[in-house]
Amino acid sequence: MPKRVSRPKQDQFEKSLRGTLAYNIRLFRFENGISQEELAFRCELDRTYISAVERCIWNVSLGNIEKISDALKVEPWQLLVPPKELG
Amino acid sequence: MPKRVSRPKQDQFEKSLRGTLAYNIRLFRFENGISQEELAFRCELDRTYISAVERCIWNVSLGNIEKISDALKVEPWQLLVPPKELG
Repeated sequence: MPKRVSRPKQDQFEKSLRGTLAYNIRLFRFENGISQEELAFRCELDRTYISAVERCIWNVSLGNIEKISDALKVEPWQLLVPPKELG
Repeated sequence: MPKRVSRPKQDQFEKSLRGTLAYNIRLFRFENGISQEELAFRCELDRTYISAVERCIWNVSLGNIEKISDALKVEPWQLLVPPKELG
């Protein structure tokens, strides 16, 4: 039974570029209905790496932004646009 | 006498995410009328690093994308949008 993927909570949003990236990855994962494990698998990255990115721990490289956006079927720049609903 | 900043040539555009970043940095440098040296100074990065980024050599980190976008007075995501004029 696959784990349910939940929408990121707005009060978890960290207002920074890392926070924007983290929030957007979680939002697009939710929209694609895929877990961190599945995203990691599609990106050929480690699940713990994806988890750390979503917790704003890593200074992600352009190459990994591209891998993640490919896996989420969005354009790389879309991952850096501050979420509208959070102002 | 400051060096003239030239508009990036379209035939120098490398079609990749690094190429998009490189092209946009050069385009916004041109629009701001600032040299690589001046951009590097504003970012507190080395001039040779900026030069390498513009030649698609580096896998730039999110932190440096932010520094560069701040210095160019654009939003970070704008540096990753493929230039319209190049399709």
